[in-house]
Formats: sequence, structure tokens, C-alpha cells
Amino acid sequence: MTARVLDGNAVARAIREEVAPGVAAFTATAGRPPGLGIVLVGDDPASHVYVRNKIRAGMEAGMFVDLQQLPATATLDDVLGVVGRLNASDVHDGILVQSPLPGAMGREAERAVFDVIDPAKDVDGFSPGNVGLLVQKRDCLKACTPAGVIELLDRSGIAIAGQRAVVIGRSDIVGKPMALMLLHRDATVTVCHSRTTSLASLCAEADILVAAIGRACMVTPDFVKPGATVIDVGMNRLDDAATVAALFPAGSKKREQFEKAGSVLVGDVHPDVAGTAGALTPVPGGVGPLTIAMLMKNTLQAAIARVAARA
Amino acid sequence: MTARVLDGNAVARAIREEVAPGVAAFTATAGRPPGLGIVLVGDDPASHVYVRNKIRAGMEAGMFVDLQQLPATATLDDVLGVVGRLNASDVHDGILVQSPLPGAMGREAERAVFDVIDPAKDVDGFSPGNVGLLVQKRDCLKACTPAGVIELLDRSGIAIAGQRAVVIGRSDIVGKPMALMLLHRDATVTVCHSRTTSLASLCAEADILVAAIGRACMVTPDFVKPGATVIDVGMNRLDDAATVAALFPAGSKKREQFEKAGSVLVGDVHPDVAGTAGALTPVPGGVGPLTIAMLMKNTLQAAIARVAARA
Repeated sequence: MTARVLDGNAVARAIREEVAPGVAAFTATAGRPPGLGIVLVGDDPASHVYVRNKIRAGMEAGMFVDLQQLPATATLDDVLGVVGRLNASDVHDGILVQSPLPGAMGREAERAVFDVIDPAKDVDGFSPGNVGLLVQKRDCLKACTPAGVIELLDRSGIAIAGQRAVVIGRSDIVGKPMALMLLHRDATVTVCHSRTTSLASLCAEADILVAAIGRACMVTPDFVKPGATVIDVGMNRLDDAATVAALFPAGSKKREQFEKAGSVLVGDVHPDVAGTAGALTPVPGGVGPLTIAMLMKNTLQAAIARVAARA
Repeated sequence: MTARVLDGNAVARAIREEVAPGVAAFTATAGRPPGLGIVLVGDDPASHVYVRNKIRAGMEAGMFVDLQQLPATATLDDVLGVVGRLNASDVHDGILVQSPLPGAMGREAERAVFDVIDPAKDVDGFSPGNVGLLVQKRDCLKACTPAGVIELLDRSGIAIAGQRAVVIGRSDIVGKPMALMLLHRDATVTVCHSRTTSLASLCAEADILVAAIGRACMVTPDFVKPGATVIDVGMNRLDDAATVAALFPAGSKKREQFEKAGSVLVGDVHPDVAGTAGALTPVPGGVGPLTIAMLMKNTLQAAIARVAARA
């Protein structure tokens, strides 16, 4: 048995193609395109890649994308100042501050920045107000990654209602909102984490298993019920030959990629899971592109809601 | 085996005794006692009982309790007007609108009322802002019933971290905040509901089982792992002889109470569970008194925070 591959790129493309006419209609009515302000601080290479992809997606969707770039030496006040200007701007409908902020800003910096983003422009869905509305199953801007997972399941014809779902990881950004969204779609949901005992056997009860831990290839075939759907939210870059050799046999695809490039991108799920799961998202090309597609959808939603609120 | 009875009255008393000196200290510093405004609309007999108990607890704690009573014919605007005045008042630190509002106000009335309560005075913890902060494990006013359950577990010496917890019910008021609070205490948490399949066997995996469904005696011994802790949040009044006879054998305590009074109060958990569980909350005298104790604690917390915010 080899799991069906859930093609995140294809689903993301479909979502973005649905967003495009909405963007055109908004632009025609409002006299300006939906606007997305992206704040990027410092030199983290992965952040630069993510932001570049978001900018490209926004421009392709016909949006106004405004990159506000700050050096790694920027202070928290600098970042708060930029967010304040974007909050006040009439042409910015969405604001995204790329995580992580430089460590020198302190552990509480991200929270402080996310808290001042106008909830109506909070296209990442990280503000307490939007999170509270999500819990209460009300209209709001929802975290992009878990919202993208729901879209992927729906558009892949995978039933959620009545299914056992297990989410590994309890972050504010993925694990907790993912669990709430699955619950609101009538799944019976379990959240596992570092303190969970008998993790593998508990995961093996899941019809839908979502891995969002940030540990390379932690989910192995013994975690997976035969035929289950496995969603891999992890994105880990391996650049150590011994680690790669321990995880992947000579001649395997990941091993070959590593040998060619000196590093390789892997998820939280070991590729061997494809022999047990019924459906599986690849890394890369699974959940990642969906996150960006949902960001576009959220930005359009925020733009429409902001104009409607003024009418 | 007979389950240890978790005495909610005793734990509630202990919490209220801890709140009392805080109230005295606040009163001495602020020059006025913490103030709780309670809005009661209509003639629902159970609501009148709940409100009476809340008023008594507040007065015993040394608080200023202000009952704002409206007739069943009151409009939504009338209720919103009262809440507006309490929001603006300097001597009301907490505002509680007793649920349910009269059906004639429409299905969305409660949500509309809860949404206008100042989050700083939202001692029920129902506003989206407080719920979002709860999800993010930050300081906030937390829903009283699930917060009371955590206190009961802690003060009864029942470990939460690393345990399997199952919550039956996914309401905004109990099920979802309960699941989040258990998760933040490092339990592995599953939320079950009306769409859950194999409910009994799933519940029987729990070390801590919380029933918050509102269906009399639905949780029977087959739902319970031997030795598990069972928390009964249900509160159902039975007044039909056939129902009572079907649930309780002649000579049983609940049957005798019914025969004496013409009705009997039961939880969501059948008393027979005491033969399987290791610990069990009674109904009445379990979770109910804790809800009121936590309301006192929240009102004091809100009073202190409001004064501190102005200093």
C-alpha cells in the first residue's frame, strides 16, 4: 500500500484562483486593490524565503503588497511604530509580522507586536479577539495553517465529521486552532504533546492525524492506523549527514536530495508512513503552500469587511 | 469499591475563605468593596435560585452586590441599557447576566449582551477577548465552572499533568474552556460530543472524565475506567416518575428523594458510577458551589485589576 499524496500545491492554486476574481471585484468597487503590509525584521534566511513567497502570491493575486523591512538591530519600539502606521493606513487591509522576531528583542516581543495589530487587519488570526471568536465558532480571521488544512481535507474528499482526529502539538499558531477547527467540524479531537504518555498508540487511534511538533520525522509508521489520513505541518531542514543517514536508507529520495544539495527539507512525519497511511501530505508541497493561499483569502476577507464596516 | 466523594461544598468554602481577606484588603485600600452587578431577566425558577445563591455568596464575602431585575417582557435594548450603565459605573467591578435570557428575545440575544460587557468586568469569562487570552494561556478572567473544576482537582490532590482527560460536551461555557484548561495543565485531552462514535469506550480510556452534556445519568459505569476521577458538571431536575423509576431502583437514595419531593436533582453521571470510579463529584454539592466560589474570586480579581489599571 502506498498512501495517496495530498497535493497541497494543487489545492493552494485552486484557492488562489478563487481569490483572484474577488480581488478584481474589490478593486473595481473600492478603487484600490486589497493591501497587505508585511513586516520583516532581521536576516533569518527561512523568514526571507517565506516572505518572498508571500509577496509573490499577493502580487499574483492582484493585491498591493507593501514590504516593511527592518534591520536585525531594530528595537521593539521600531516594530511597534511600523505596525502603528500600518494600523492607521487606509490602504493596508492586512498586516503580517513575520515570525520569529530577532531573539535580542526578548521573549515577549512577538506577543507585544501581535497584540497591537488591529484585529480587523490581523490576517494571521493571532490576536486574542480573533482567537476568542474562533473558539465561539463565529466569523473571524482564522490562523492560516490550520484553516488551510481544513481546506485540503475538504477538497480532497476526506470526511471530518464523526472521525477521530489527533493533533500532535499545542501551539497557539497551529495545534490549538487546528483542534478547535476539527472540533467545529464534528471530529472527536485529541490534543497530544510532550507530556503525553503512550503517544504512538494514541496516535494510532486517529482517522486524521495532524503532526505539528517541529521534530524531524518523529511520526513513524507505528503512529499510524492503516488507511488514516496524515497531515504533516512540520518543516525541518536537516544539514547533518549522520542524522540524514540514520533516518533515510542509501538510495532513498531524501538521502539523494541531501547528497545533491547538502541539506534536505523534511516534515514531522517520516516518509515511510506512506506505507501505512491512506493519504499523506508531502514536505515540501503539502501544507506550506496552503498557508500562503489562506493568507491571500484572509487579506481579501479583511479588505471586504473593512470597506463594508464603513458603508 | 466505592468512589471517594469529592466535596465541592468544602472546597468552595475554602476558596471563599481565601477570598474574604482579599476583599477586606481591597475595601480598605479602595475605600469601597468590590462590586458585582447581576442582571436577572424574567421568571425562570432555576435562574432565580442561582442568582439568590450568588447574591448570598457575594454578600457573605463582603462585596457590594447589585441585583438589576427586569421583567420577562423586557426587550434586548432594555438589557443592553442596563449593561451599558454597569459598564460605565465606577463601583461595579464585575457584571454577570444570568443565562438563559427569555426565549422571546431571540437566539442571538445572549451573544449580543455578552459581547457588550466590558472585558475587564466580564467575571463569567464569556467575552471573545477573555476566551482568546485563555487559549493563549495568559492572564484573564476565566469561565467559572471549568476553573472551579481545576481547583477541585488540585485541592483534592488529583494529578492532571500527563493524565488522559476526556471532556464530554463542547459548549462555550464549559466543554471548550475545560479542555483548554486541562491541556494547559499538561493533560492529554480529548473532546467528545453528540457526533462521537464509540463514546463509552473512548471515555473509558480517561483518567479524568468530565461530563458536561446536560443529559441525566448518561454516563454509566461502562464509560468509566476503574479508579478514574469523574467530574459531573450536569444539573438536571427529573420530575417524571417513570424516568426516575427506570434510572434508580426502589430504595435507592435518588428514588427516595423523588418520592419525598416530587422531583429530584441528578447529574450527567449515574450514581452507580461510584462503584467503578476512584473519585466522583456528587450532584448537588459537587461542581455547583465551585462555580459560585470562582465567581467571587473573579470579581475580586477584576476589582484589583481595575484599580491597578488606573494607578
